[in-house]
Amino acid sequence: MPAPIISACPVRTRFGVLSIRPFIRFFSHTPVHHLRSTELTPDYLSSLRSNPDRIWTDIHTSASKFGPGRRWGQDPTHTGLTRLTLTDHDKAARDWFVETTKSLHCDVKVDAIGNTFAIRPGLNNDVPATFVGSHLDSQPLGGRFDGVLGVCAGIEMLRVLNDNHIETEGPVGVVNWTNEEGARFPVSMMGSGVWAGAQDLQSIYKLKEVNAGTNGQRRTVKEELERIGYLGNIPASPIEGVRMAGHFELHIEQGPKLDSEKKSVGVVEGVQSYQWYEIRVWGQASHAGATEFKYRADALLFASGIVVKAREMAEKAGVLATVGILRAEPGSVNTTPDSVYMTLDIRHRDNEMVATFAADFQGWLKQAAGREGGITFEMSKTFESRATKFDEVAIACVRDSAGAVTGKHDVPSMTSGAGHDSVNTSKHCPTAMVFVPCRKGVSHHPEEWCEKEHCAVGTDVIVQSVLRFDQWRHKEGHFGGSLDSNG
Amino acid sequence: MPAPIISACPVRTRFGVLSIRPFIRFFSHTPVHHLRSTELTPDYLSSLRSNPDRIWTDIHTSASKFGPGRRWGQDPTHTGLTRLTLTDHDKAARDWFVETTKSLHCDVKVDAIGNTFAIRPGLNNDVPATFVGSHLDSQPLGGRFDGVLGVCAGIEMLRVLNDNHIETEGPVGVVNWTNEEGARFPVSMMGSGVWAGAQDLQSIYKLKEVNAGTNGQRRTVKEELERIGYLGNIPASPIEGVRMAGHFELHIEQGPKLDSEKKSVGVVEGVQSYQWYEIRVWGQASHAGATEFKYRADALLFASGIVVKAREMAEKAGVLATVGILRAEPGSVNTTPDSVYMTLDIRHRDNEMVATFAADFQGWLKQAAGREGGITFEMSKTFESRATKFDEVAIACVRDSAGAVTGKHDVPSMTSGAGHDSVNTSKHCPTAMVFVPCRKGVSHHPEEWCEKEHCAVGTDVIVQSVLRFDQWRHKEGHFGGSLDSNG
Ligand SMILES: [Zn+2]
Ligand SMILES: [Zn+2]
Repeated sequence: MPAPIISACPVRTRFGVLSIRPFIRFFSHTPVHHLRSTELTPDYLSSLRSNPDRIWTDIHTSASKFGPGRRWGQDPTHTGLTRLTLTDHDKAARDWFVETTKSLHCDVKVDAIGNTFAIRPGLNNDVPATFVGSHLDSQPLGGRFDGVLGVCAGIEMLRVLNDNHIETEGPVGVVNWTNEEGARFPVSMMGSGVWAGAQDLQSIYKLKEVNAGTNGQRRTVKEELERIGYLGNIPASPIEGVRMAGHFELHIEQGPKLDSEKKSVGVVEGVQSYQWYEIRVWGQASHAGATEFKYRADALLFASGIVVKAREMAEKAGVLATVGILRAEPGSVNTTPDSVYMTLDIRHRDNEMVATFAADFQGWLKQAAGREGGITFEMSKTFESRATKFDEVAIACVRDSAGAVTGKHDVPSMTSGAGHDSVNTSKHCPTAMVFVPCRKGVSHHPEEWCEKEHCAVGTDVIVQSVLRFDQWRHKEGHFGGSLDSNG
Repeated sequence: MPAPIISACPVRTRFGVLSIRPFIRFFSHTPVHHLRSTELTPDYLSSLRSNPDRIWTDIHTSASKFGPGRRWGQDPTHTGLTRLTLTDHDKAARDWFVETTKSLHCDVKVDAIGNTFAIRPGLNNDVPATFVGSHLDSQPLGGRFDGVLGVCAGIEMLRVLNDNHIETEGPVGVVNWTNEEGARFPVSMMGSGVWAGAQDLQSIYKLKEVNAGTNGQRRTVKEELERIGYLGNIPASPIEGVRMAGHFELHIEQGPKLDSEKKSVGVVEGVQSYQWYEIRVWGQASHAGATEFKYRADALLFASGIVVKAREMAEKAGVLATVGILRAEPGSVNTTPDSVYMTLDIRHRDNEMVATFAADFQGWLKQAAGREGGITFEMSKTFESRATKFDEVAIACVRDSAGAVTGKHDVPSMTSGAGHDSVNTSKHCPTAMVFVPCRKGVSHHPEEWCEKEHCAVGTDVIVQSVLRFDQWRHKEGHFGGSLDSNG
């Protein structure tokens, strides 16, 4: 039941006549005064805070229950997260998300790719909701914060709004996007990509898991969505399905900038451009003791040269280039490898810089392989995400909120190095992101860590950003990119 | 039943009174004339030939039945061999070896490490046998000739002796050594090493397989010997167990020298010195898009530098150095690896050269890691095989036989780059090896190939070498290293 609002609160609001949530209020014994977001004073809004304990409990309780990973330290929370998308652990985490948000008075909708939207009605429910979103899935040996923090921040926002009896003009919600990581089914930002039209639903349905199960079979996305009960009946679409007025995402930085500069929060204004390549090198297997160097065509030696050269060329060009996977076959102490599979990840703020580097590198590779006897290679692009600039209004909401929460005017602006679901939502509605530091920038690793204080600061910024955005849309009559025709 | 001997044969021999194989002769209806090895004329001995079809059939029939590997060509024989030691396939191959040699009138003995000795009695069976030996196990993606050819040559020798009714002075035999490859249980030349005292039986019993089985368990050598029924009750020892007068091994070269020089056979006078190292590199996992180069400690980038530098330093020093295994964790496109496991194989004819190179390389590694922030490493020796010089008499037997078989005086002398079971036997008895070419020097690979003609030439040399050695030991009163006290 709603508790009486804090007496220090200076603002009272009239009852939200358009709300479809008046039930518990009509029959509540204690008369409750509700706050309308558009009538919150700047001081009141700036003083709104989340409850750090609740966020912390949500993160660690869900991690312990639904896919605990490798333990690395003394405390039980010093444990990673292994929650590959559409597994039983993921299903359990999804079920928890649905129950929790329903208990916080949300309607829950699941779309055709399993994206799960929890919507808290507003005063006007003919307009789309403003969402806080991220993902509950993890890398195979992931950490507890990547994605999860963003979803938990959304859940905490629901509690803060409920506890403070705040009515928003439009509805607000929380979304858990399916398979952001692309670790089990190899397309990252998959659910948001289908929703945004960047990925084709039918092709994605047929996508197979990377590793075969114990029965030797590789299951498809559709089979697994059905199996865990998250093949929803709502179209995955910003027009035909769940519409979106705005999207705000809190995420750990996954880089060392905030941590090393001792900043508690960053305003993310966009996402780098990046391209992924697969490189295969073939040589000849020969005995390590019986084959003189002149007779060898050592695929691993050549591949090692590629790793070293990629860094060297990237430093000169001012882009980022990383070889994250390298597998050498056959893998015997006394045999030169005859084949290597490796990946190359290239990033820069600017699309052209990435494309130019890729072309230059491929040129070097061709020349280098030509100089070696018996070495052949293939280099092919497997993924591309063009540079993203977030929406000015959404960024302003985040910037104002970050200033209000931290009391500082020098909150850093950042460009995300990693891709996020916000890249996809930004194509259809105002979107912005909030970064909080993670220890030493470590991510996609069990030891990934975000301090409790920073989880709370980030959530505070998210809560305030959504309310500021709600104020703005009401004032400007803006109802979101996916509803432009009605707006 | 024995057939009449060829009429062209100029030598007759008296009945072998000390033979314990007279059974079929006493009761044979056709009187058979037997040849005593010490009475064979040089011309007769030099004209002895194996049957190429039988060798070829043994190699390919056993490969098709007991662990066929990856097919790479048109003909059914164009298929590799996957017969890891002590697996069901290895058991089946061993059973075939036992049945076949028993049917050729051998006594079969299995020692405590599963080495299997088939002994054809001689005229004097109080002295140890002269063995032809090699191994029936393969690499995970191995070829059909490595090891198998040597065992099949031994089996063919039994047939040649039987068909020609040749009685040897001492017994002769064929030995299949356990786990020469060291692929499944990571100690190479394992069975012969235990026999020779180079490896401790109890430690080897506890050795675990490299990869866990489907039940997640890694089984031990002893468990697997028991399971397949090859935990013998004879000590694995050259004194207490099966004694050895001499050891001759036919093997594919596993290098390109004979093939590129169009030679059909080589006399192996010794084996290079070699050392194996494990190198582990630790860095830090960081996001490929969110971590500037200056903040990275990329274990794969550092390991790649090691691969490149090892080759560069080895070329300068005139030794061979090879990185055969490199595994990078966690293995994600957009994460810098935080740990790498790799191996280094160093070889040279001279022990000192190998040791000096290893020390110099470790010195460079220490300096290089010191220059990098956040990179640590460990380099440890896992195996060492000092340079081996084979026995002068055994080499002379091989050299004379190779000359007789090929009709050429320029049969090349070679030093083996690879380790073989003969390294272990050479510590206890006169030992020498015969090399035949393999196509392009490819080995430890499904496409490993030895021409039928070369398999036969090598077997001819082996058969004649054993007979020449038998003549020599009788003349000199030598009864083998493992029986020096009796000799
Ligand atoms: Zn994430
Ligand atoms: Zn071998």
